[in-house]
Amino acid sequence: MNQDYIQPNEWSIIEEGFDKQRVKSSESLFSIGNGAMGQRANFEETYTGKTFQGSYIGGVYYPDKTRVGWWKNGYPEYFAKVINAPNWIGINVEINGEALDLNTCKEVRNFRRELNMKEGWYQRSFEATLQNGTEIALESTRILHIEEDELGIINFEITPLNRDAEIVFMPYLDGGITNEDSNWDDKFWDTLSVQEGNHQAFIRSRTMKTHFDVCTYMQSKVFVNGAEKSLDYTGAIKELSVALTYKVSVKKGEKATLQKFAGYTISLNHKPEDLIDASIKVLQKATKEGYSALKQQQTEAWASIWEMADIAIKGDVKAQQGIRFNIFQLNQTYLGKDARLNIGPKGFTGEKYGGSTYWDTEAYCIPFYMATKDQAVARNLLTYRYNHLQKAIENAQKLGFKNGAALYPMVTMNGEECHNEWEITFEEIHRNGAIAFAIYNYERFTGDTSYIPEKGLEVLIGIARFWEQRATFSKAKNKYVILGVTGPNEYENNVNNNWYTNYVAKWCLEYAASEVEKVKKSNPEDFKRIEAKTKISGQEVLDWNKTASNMYFPYSEEFGIYLQQDGFLDKELITVANLDRSNRPINQKWSWDRILRSPYIKQADTLQGFYFFEEHFSKEQLEKHFDFYEPFTVHESSLSPCVHSIQAAKLDRMEQAYTFYLRTSRLDLDDYNKEVEEGCHITSMAGTWMSIVEGFGGMRVREGKLHFEPKIPEQWDQYSFKVNFRGQILKVSISKNKQVFKVDGDSPLNIVVNQKEITLAPNTETTV
Amino acid sequence: MNQDYIQPNEWSIIEEGFDKQRVKSSESLFSIGNGAMGQRANFEETYTGKTFQGSYIGGVYYPDKTRVGWWKNGYPEYFAKVINAPNWIGINVEINGEALDLNTCKEVRNFRRELNMKEGWYQRSFEATLQNGTEIALESTRILHIEEDELGIINFEITPLNRDAEIVFMPYLDGGITNEDSNWDDKFWDTLSVQEGNHQAFIRSRTMKTHFDVCTYMQSKVFVNGAEKSLDYTGAIKELSVALTYKVSVKKGEKATLQKFAGYTISLNHKPEDLIDASIKVLQKATKEGYSALKQQQTEAWASIWEMADIAIKGDVKAQQGIRFNIFQLNQTYLGKDARLNIGPKGFTGEKYGGSTYWDTEAYCIPFYMATKDQAVARNLLTYRYNHLQKAIENAQKLGFKNGAALYPMVTMNGEECHNEWEITFEEIHRNGAIAFAIYNYERFTGDTSYIPEKGLEVLIGIARFWEQRATFSKAKNKYVILGVTGPNEYENNVNNNWYTNYVAKWCLEYAASEVEKVKKSNPEDFKRIEAKTKISGQEVLDWNKTASNMYFPYSEEFGIYLQQDGFLDKELITVANLDRSNRPINQKWSWDRILRSPYIKQADTLQGFYFFEEHFSKEQLEKHFDFYEPFTVHESSLSPCVHSIQAAKLDRMEQAYTFYLRTSRLDLDDYNKEVEEGCHITSMAGTWMSIVEGFGGMRVREGKLHFEPKIPEQWDQYSFKVNFRGQILKVSISKNKQVFKVDGDSPLNIVVNQKEITLAPNTETTV
Repeated sequence: MNQDYIQPNEWSIIEEGFDKQRVKSSESLFSIGNGAMGQRANFEETYTGKTFQGSYIGGVYYPDKTRVGWWKNGYPEYFAKVINAPNWIGINVEINGEALDLNTCKEVRNFRRELNMKEGWYQRSFEATLQNGTEIALESTRILHIEEDELGIINFEITPLNRDAEIVFMPYLDGGITNEDSNWDDKFWDTLSVQEGNHQAFIRSRTMKTHFDVCTYMQSKVFVNGAEKSLDYTGAIKELSVALTYKVSVKKGEKATLQKFAGYTISLNHKPEDLIDASIKVLQKATKEGYSALKQQQTEAWASIWEMADIAIKGDVKAQQGIRFNIFQLNQTYLGKDARLNIGPKGFTGEKYGGSTYWDTEAYCIPFYMATKDQAVARNLLTYRYNHLQKAIENAQKLGFKNGAALYPMVTMNGEECHNEWEITFEEIHRNGAIAFAIYNYERFTGDTSYIPEKGLEVLIGIARFWEQRATFSKAKNKYVILGVTGPNEYENNVNNNWYTNYVAKWCLEYAASEVEKVKKSNPEDFKRIEAKTKISGQEVLDWNKTASNMYFPYSEEFGIYLQQDGFLDKELITVANLDRSNRPINQKWSWDRILRSPYIKQADTLQGFYFFEEHFSKEQLEKHFDFYEPFTVHESSLSPCVHSIQAAKLDRMEQAYTFYLRTSRLDLDDYNKEVEEGCHITSMAGTWMSIVEGFGGMRVREGKLHFEPKIPEQWDQYSFKVNFRGQILKVSISKNKQVFKVDGDSPLNIVVNQKEITLAPNTETTV
Repeated sequence: MNQDYIQPNEWSIIEEGFDKQRVKSSESLFSIGNGAMGQRANFEETYTGKTFQGSYIGGVYYPDKTRVGWWKNGYPEYFAKVINAPNWIGINVEINGEALDLNTCKEVRNFRRELNMKEGWYQRSFEATLQNGTEIALESTRILHIEEDELGIINFEITPLNRDAEIVFMPYLDGGITNEDSNWDDKFWDTLSVQEGNHQAFIRSRTMKTHFDVCTYMQSKVFVNGAEKSLDYTGAIKELSVALTYKVSVKKGEKATLQKFAGYTISLNHKPEDLIDASIKVLQKATKEGYSALKQQQTEAWASIWEMADIAIKGDVKAQQGIRFNIFQLNQTYLGKDARLNIGPKGFTGEKYGGSTYWDTEAYCIPFYMATKDQAVARNLLTYRYNHLQKAIENAQKLGFKNGAALYPMVTMNGEECHNEWEITFEEIHRNGAIAFAIYNYERFTGDTSYIPEKGLEVLIGIARFWEQRATFSKAKNKYVILGVTGPNEYENNVNNNWYTNYVAKWCLEYAASEVEKVKKSNPEDFKRIEAKTKISGQEVLDWNKTASNMYFPYSEEFGIYLQQDGFLDKELITVANLDRSNRPINQKWSWDRILRSPYIKQADTLQGFYFFEEHFSKEQLEKHFDFYEPFTVHESSLSPCVHSIQAAKLDRMEQAYTFYLRTSRLDLDDYNKEVEEGCHITSMAGTWMSIVEGFGGMRVREGKLHFEPKIPEQWDQYSFKVNFRGQILKVSISKNKQVFKVDGDSPLNIVVNQKEITLAPNTETTV
């Protein structure tokens, strides 16, 4: 943890001072993205110090051959991962004959990075003394354009401070990139062509095996003191790269600027043979509009995102910065335009977890996107899984299931399973529950009843069939049991009757059964199509209900709680508070067997069930379970604090809720787990949003209405957020002494605040 | 399974006919070894077809960097494995200008392999027509000398059948060998020097990282029609290899013979700088004695092994061949001369399992070596673990244990753990029990009470300390429990209270406690030394007994049996007989989760406890447990059938016992599991021996006396075996109608047959 690294600031992430040890961490934190592509905050110019290069394109992945010590039947052949793509940010620089390299400069002063979240740009500036004595100031601003999402822009300015300088700019493209996270050091890319002309350059590359074609392109302009120079350049084409060389002489104090317009066009969006033409079109438009106009468009695009998504906090700048960083990163990662894309755990900030889709999307991200964007965005996320249904059925078949049972993968890019630890891949099957729950949650929140008959019901049927087959009958218990699973708490493997899994299975069976009956009545045409496709029968639905109603749940009479799994009480029940600090984090200090036989919980497990199915339990039950399980919880997953924060707030434990909130919101900014250099924890950022809106704000949807039970942490003066509820924009502002609600537009909105229903007149603040 | 592959024969393994698809399998089955080195039955001459080259040196290993998909704390950094060593068998041949290669010959006739187990040699012969029309007969005989265990000899004879021939022999050494089982395609060997002169050649190699020096050497002689020729030769030295070329012209029908004397000298037995001199000494002696004399020595050495170890079966040639193959392979693998060596699961027949030491040695191999060799051999096997005690303590420390607790590794070469699956490495801890049991078993059988005070007690203390810490107290059960283990049945992972593990833990604690008290009284000097070294205290011993007497054992009142583990009865209890055949073997057909949640048992687990601790239970209890568990057992481990055969025999189910016996004894010969090409199952071969001696013969040691309850399978007329019991050699012959016992030497021996004690007069047959 490093609390002094990032400067507190409401709208920007700011680092001051150059520290070579922090370069990789900052490359993660200052990452930029526009939903379609993203990149780590690598330097444009040569840097010979430690760095982790990364530029990623949404949907462009490589199936990296699985690496395991001991193969098990059913393991996937490969791990599909979003890969480091050709580098278009590179600008090598020579100043008076010396290559600029912050690793070798005599001195670096006033080094500063800023990620301006309000306007969506990243800037780096410094002064440096080169070995040859030349002192320069450099300021580089980088944008990934939100609207023109194939386009990036760099404004790269150098001013010699103590003498005249001959500056050589060598903007380049490089297809010869590597991946840190490669299982077998395979080559991931074929380079098809490298060409340049007319201040433009293009590299056409193709991913091996998956055959995604990508054109990486650039065009440059040079300015002195703001005036464009029409300079000649020298082009140099190599096997895998191309560079254009511009020489410019400036006097001491004069500013030389290179503007680089660059990015990717890809075969997911264009015909492969049209990629260079498509790139030229983007370049023509962009260079015509120019850097300032493009930057202005970026500011406006982000203003429009913030208009809906912002959470403002008064009186706590660190909390404010934390939540905005989270909201900003989520929007950089996924904007919901494209149902082929999803939200990787590291977004575009690193390679870990392969940029693939996890249950994080359904369990943690969908509420954020539902409330801050048009419902089409969440629907796209659901459709993503609908489009993968056939693969989920095949995945279940590989594990011996039949009759259209679907097991969604733990990790996926194209619907196929990519994970390869048996205890996760084959056993962490509760993920299927989250995918069904997201469908329920979507309809509950949006009121959109069209999704289930159109698409969702088929998913629910596949999932119910899986649970029906996966639950087995125990004669000894005279109940259905689910043996050999890993629950959300991955610090237990291959346990029997994980309560959360059994509960979500029971719920899925009942929900699917009731939705089958519902659609049969409400949408008979859709039902006919689904019946023909799935061969669903009335007997099957009866069986689901029978299994559900005879599901076994481990319970302790002594403690009055559901047990996380069979045998939980046989453990040595020493709370985390009574565990010597030197043992933590246990996932770094302990061997796996010790973790497994301990009572320690990585992230909400039984409590995850109390989160999803809150209304099935009383507040007293929640309290009992929270008091039992939270003391054993080590929160070593980024997904843990948010759920606990929400529940602590519900239990009026605001100090604890606030502590959890800070931990989740500033996980990366304060580098709690000393791993931010690998990338940021994107999916858990949506949990941060939930901590405020559902936790402090107490927002729920019940029977088609928004409910609130607002609370506010002691440390805050006020916080406010907006919710897009079924097309109406509701703004909520909570202070210590008043709660203000306002709905935009023409229609009133009925909401329930602290269990009292009130009607909000349109465009009028209502204070409670 | 392939029952027609190997010809039935009492003393030889014979393959007839050339089948390219069987070359790799035969390379395993016809492997030869002499305890110090061993090799697969690769061809001497060039073979361009599919082959798996392997030549191994006991104790010479390489630490291959661990390969896993997901790293866990505590995993070993490397897997130490016995590696393919430089090739000394190679003899390239040209006949009338054409390279001899069975893969490209026009025709191969009368191809035959014989592994003569009685005399300890391997022979291959065939007739072939080359592409150039020359027809030849070839006969090659290979020996690894049992006494001079650095020496191998090849007698390689070619006779042109249809025309005169110029034959070029190119005996060579090759240091440029690779390993099939390499995690990262590392290079395992450095070649230090390659030299030749005076008909001799030498390659000095060094293993990377472990720095074992090996000199691979050879010398050749050429004969025509049995008369030695003093031919000139041409030497060719390459970077990694050396070849000597001899040309000889023979008439049609004349026999040209190349004799090659070759092998390894190693730095485990000589100073590195002396290796070439040591090789020259071996060569001088061997070439002076000559091939025939050496072959005669080999015959005599094997006669002396068989004199003690043979089991003769009348009336069932396949059973006879099976048991002799097993005894032969065990002796090829380990002769007990060197306490630094042990018994790898594949011996010298393949690379799988790395040639390392498993609990197989203690659980399955020691009884064979105790009964068929001098007790020093079994004592060497115990000493091997004593020498690794400090490493076992360090291994336990890595997993968080303290105070001298020792966890012996699952797989090891030098005492360090090499396995890297958490469910095995960290959880299959019952292995510690087998190591303690072997100490008990050794003293029980040999009556040697000196081992425990000298060495064994320290091992027992380390093991008891491990169990004392590993068992934890369950408040819910008010008992000590052992959570998160894998039992001998590796088709269950991370289970709680595996009965076998709990039972062996309890036994270890009590046994260690009682041995501490015993040594304190009987060997006070030894005890002082051990006390000073281990800081063992009286309180500790009390604690062991307390934990042992409060150990929890899962039990079913309904079935009247101990449960394999907590929750076993929650499974779908469908017996193997009721499982569709298409599902088997389940380890090839099912995904791992499905195996884990099934009731199917890979090898004896609860029944392993009933085997080790037979006298703690009644025959009725054994029957109940056998009847419950065996029907769920798939016997997919080579170690499974033997224990079940012994127990079936005890329960008078001779037909079943015989079926298990055949399966274990001919596992490799009939290639039950279609994997013999990877190598033979060496350690389970000792189980085959147990099936006869302990199973059919009913041999036990109780209170210092040998007990027998002989039975005989319906299919046999007679079987006989010998046992070295405390220096006296007892011969046992069992027929359907009589049982004959005879003790060699000068002293009588009291034995118990069918619960009646009888006194055997020396050198006199006693018929019961």
